[in-house]
Amino acid sequence: MARIMRINMTTQQVALEEAAPEYQGLGGRGLTSTIVSKEVPPLCNPIGPNNKLVFAPGLLSGTSAPISGRISVGGKSPLTGTIKESNAGGQGALSMARCGLKAIVVEGKAPSGKLYKLLVNKDGGVLSECPELKGSGNYDVAAKLRDEHGDKAVCISIGPCGEMQMQSASVAVTDIEGRPTRHAGRGGMGAVMGSKGLKAIVVDPTDAPRIEPINKDAFTAACKKLTKALQEHPVTGQGLPTYGTNVLANIINEAAAYPTNSFSKGQFAETGKISGETQHDVILERGGKIAHPCHTGCVIRCSRIYNDKEGGFLSKGPEYETIWANGANCGISDLDAIAMIDRLCDDYGLDTIEVGVTIGVAMDAGIKAFGDAQGAIELVHEMGKGTSLGRILGAGAAVTGKCLGVEDVAVVKGQGLPAYDPRPILGIGVTYATSTMGADHTAGYAIAGNILGIGTKVDPMKVEGQVELSRNLQIATAALDCTGLCLFTAFAVLDKPEAFDAIYEMLNGLYGLNLGADDVVELGKNVLRTERSFNQAAGFTPKHDRLPEFFKMKPLSPLNVVFTVTDEQLDQVFNF
Amino acid sequence: MARIMRINMTTQQVALEEAAPEYQGLGGRGLTSTIVSKEVPPLCNPIGPNNKLVFAPGLLSGTSAPISGRISVGGKSPLTGTIKESNAGGQGALSMARCGLKAIVVEGKAPSGKLYKLLVNKDGGVLSECPELKGSGNYDVAAKLRDEHGDKAVCISIGPCGEMQMQSASVAVTDIEGRPTRHAGRGGMGAVMGSKGLKAIVVDPTDAPRIEPINKDAFTAACKKLTKALQEHPVTGQGLPTYGTNVLANIINEAAAYPTNSFSKGQFAETGKISGETQHDVILERGGKIAHPCHTGCVIRCSRIYNDKEGGFLSKGPEYETIWANGANCGISDLDAIAMIDRLCDDYGLDTIEVGVTIGVAMDAGIKAFGDAQGAIELVHEMGKGTSLGRILGAGAAVTGKCLGVEDVAVVKGQGLPAYDPRPILGIGVTYATSTMGADHTAGYAIAGNILGIGTKVDPMKVEGQVELSRNLQIATAALDCTGLCLFTAFAVLDKPEAFDAIYEMLNGLYGLNLGADDVVELGKNVLRTERSFNQAAGFTPKHDRLPEFFKMKPLSPLNVVFTVTDEQLDQVFNF
Repeated sequence: MARIMRINMTTQQVALEEAAPEYQGLGGRGLTSTIVSKEVPPLCNPIGPNNKLVFAPGLLSGTSAPISGRISVGGKSPLTGTIKESNAGGQGALSMARCGLKAIVVEGKAPSGKLYKLLVNKDGGVLSECPELKGSGNYDVAAKLRDEHGDKAVCISIGPCGEMQMQSASVAVTDIEGRPTRHAGRGGMGAVMGSKGLKAIVVDPTDAPRIEPINKDAFTAACKKLTKALQEHPVTGQGLPTYGTNVLANIINEAAAYPTNSFSKGQFAETGKISGETQHDVILERGGKIAHPCHTGCVIRCSRIYNDKEGGFLSKGPEYETIWANGANCGISDLDAIAMIDRLCDDYGLDTIEVGVTIGVAMDAGIKAFGDAQGAIELVHEMGKGTSLGRILGAGAAVTGKCLGVEDVAVVKGQGLPAYDPRPILGIGVTYATSTMGADHTAGYAIAGNILGIGTKVDPMKVEGQVELSRNLQIATAALDCTGLCLFTAFAVLDKPEAFDAIYEMLNGLYGLNLGADDVVELGKNVLRTERSFNQAAGFTPKHDRLPEFFKMKPLSPLNVVFTVTDEQLDQVFNF
Repeated sequence: MARIMRINMTTQQVALEEAAPEYQGLGGRGLTSTIVSKEVPPLCNPIGPNNKLVFAPGLLSGTSAPISGRISVGGKSPLTGTIKESNAGGQGALSMARCGLKAIVVEGKAPSGKLYKLLVNKDGGVLSECPELKGSGNYDVAAKLRDEHGDKAVCISIGPCGEMQMQSASVAVTDIEGRPTRHAGRGGMGAVMGSKGLKAIVVDPTDAPRIEPINKDAFTAACKKLTKALQEHPVTGQGLPTYGTNVLANIINEAAAYPTNSFSKGQFAETGKISGETQHDVILERGGKIAHPCHTGCVIRCSRIYNDKEGGFLSKGPEYETIWANGANCGISDLDAIAMIDRLCDDYGLDTIEVGVTIGVAMDAGIKAFGDAQGAIELVHEMGKGTSLGRILGAGAAVTGKCLGVEDVAVVKGQGLPAYDPRPILGIGVTYATSTMGADHTAGYAIAGNILGIGTKVDPMKVEGQVELSRNLQIATAALDCTGLCLFTAFAVLDKPEAFDAIYEMLNGLYGLNLGADDVVELGKNVLRTERSFNQAAGFTPKHDRLPEFFKMKPLSPLNVVFTVTDEQLDQVFNF
């Protein structure tokens, strides 16, 4: 049975334990949020010794279930003050699961100035000092640790921004090529890791036993069923492999909901230069890769390899959110500059969304001009180097707005809004406002029903149906985030009943259970209840489930609409 | 009947109106908090157009009532997010009251880049642009405006930090000498004024009629009664005039509750160098002044004039809080350096308490060393000049802690703690935690009962009685803050029943009322209920009525005590 590894950074002790009864049957977000909820004082300082940082693979991670490699990283967020689960692709989840771990729980705080790495393999974990990694970027960290521990070693690490405890700091996870390109970006989990004095976790699954399903035939059949559905669905079978997530750029720009120049306009005139289609052509011209998996077992393959003009590796193909945040949101249409920002964020250990939203705020304050691509790159370097300006920016959009006296800052619970303006797409605004995580598109991706017509069709600019749309998606997502399955499986799951069935059938086959569709829904509800209860104990109320007032006051061009979902309607989201 | 002047900064219109029925009978804090509560959306952006900035003299201001010159400045605070009333001495209240104004309400927001001044006299108000004052310090602003409008003109202004909308920015009020030395410091009211594009209000009471009490004999008798009580009480009659507020330095250091090196110790070895007694001698040696009134009609005269080594004016005598914040809290024992910081804060327009707490946090982060007096002065210049580092610091201690990754930051609701460590003085901790204003010693000055034995005696290190002590003081203070009377009258009021009676007797004589002691208490309760209700609507809950966890976790040397009042006890403070 998979176990929980506890790392006490105060005493440098590593312990393995059987999962307590209340943690059994949980994985991914369900497990991180339950552990945080039960063990972390809601009013604690997120960068103090009483916070905990929890890593958990999903329930299906490490098996042959398709696209099940998401790793959840949880704790109390220094960015939002809420509970936080941020998940990432890469090889982290499957290697942890192969090593027999349900979770790694990092507790306490290392003595001031000390920096540690944790080596995990099938036999357990060893903590040791690593002063030589102090201040290193994630690319160097991953290269050095893989030199030392071999090519199978997976690195979970922070860059200098995590060491500096910046609220935008991410946790990097290495991909199939061993590069630190997949990040638990949102909510400053890198700052929590930095506060504890933990620079890296190396997970080496060498000689770890395979995970054997209890009912192998049923498990395999369910896996095939999901794979088939994913391959047949036009989004997961064609759109995402061909154009990546950035296939959305033209679509959202067409919907006039593509936040431009720090959420002051809804369309970006130069979207064509940074669209998924353009990115596709640039990648192929330079000998990069499309239809590339971010982790073993991915059948969607929305990842890509983005080369520079000389054909050398620059970064993974920046995602839609990254390209928007550091592109349209900053008035920037230079794809190479955006890829450089992506690379720098991965190396310094920063959330590309928070960085882009923050640079937009800084541009609004006049620190750089909208459209100044080189200026934006300079600002990322300021963060990585921890200059005074970088310290402002690294603390995220909300703090940057406070420091620079900017009135309109697009944040909810201190977290920057992602790439969909909530004025013309009301459903995503409901998710931003009410999510247990602060503004987070992945928490309940209403774009599916509002724009893509997946699962259901709800007019994006009418209030009717938005609350139900967001509620149902938030519940489904919370359940999905327990499994280790990539959120993009949802495109097929929402449209194809057999794909939805395959999820609990895989769990049944793997664990010998007898779950049904209702159990999946109940799991999602329970995760949300747990998270919301933590937030309530941390001082959050429905008054915090609100968008900044400018979304209600200032119409967004060219549609000239404001956010019209009422407070009373927002307060209905968690009525379940 | 006194009227309310409304300034719409969006349209630059000035209007005078009779006070609405719900605003009649209110003054000072009672009026600012009621207007804010009724007219400001609790979830609005504090630096957006929907916030309002309200100036209100007290109910007794402008009359011959002794020491009745406090002016209340209210709004939603950009520092704390709560309702805020910050009051100041100087000539502002009495000149506004003489001009027949109950309040000035500043609304909306000037067009970007525009800066205005408001001239108020007995006939009304005129708003005009003042580009020539852009970026000017308060000393220059006051000098220029008094050159222009004459020596009777009182200036209420912001320095460059208010223009930059820094959360630590204060509103300056000129004193008897016409210097901008009295500040509504706490909560960033200067940032609100800056956000509205209002640089200064000039109040010229020339030829304004006297305020005639309805029952003159009763009023005069009550005034004399209070004056006598103040002159006879040892604190207000001797301690404060002779040594100023800084008479407390040795007392609080003796109690081992004098926060040193950013709240890491309870005693400062060099307190003798910055004590009230030392300050007294230095002032007299250099030809400065002790026993000096900060406004006409003050009979306590705790203000002083502090000269430099050459005998020239440097600043008003820095207050106890200023000397502590920028002294012991930063490990600094150089009284001249502290006086220079006081001068710079007055000129740049900064709250000396927030500045000192913030510099302490920056020193904890290693930006400067504890004890580096010149370094601290440099940091104040960084704020005044708005450098990147200055932008961090100007946003206050909480934001500075976030930007610099500091774990232990002494704030409640984002506002820095004043000069009494709550671990050995539990009662003041109850006030810090529960005040409607964020950490604020003036909101319920438990030092009186915990240390000074005024009014009552409650053992500072026993939990028993602290909640009642803080509750009663918060109620009494809220009432007192409506009158325009200086808080220091409370020393006599708490000890002498006739001084307490004098307060409602003055109100009765002035307005022809028939108030009794119970009405004063009820007034205080109502003010607190109004404020707490606003805060609740702004998202505050009992979970926010807490000290940072380190006060409960880390014992304070040399007494090695922690804050032991429980959360449940804190939640009893507002049970009335």
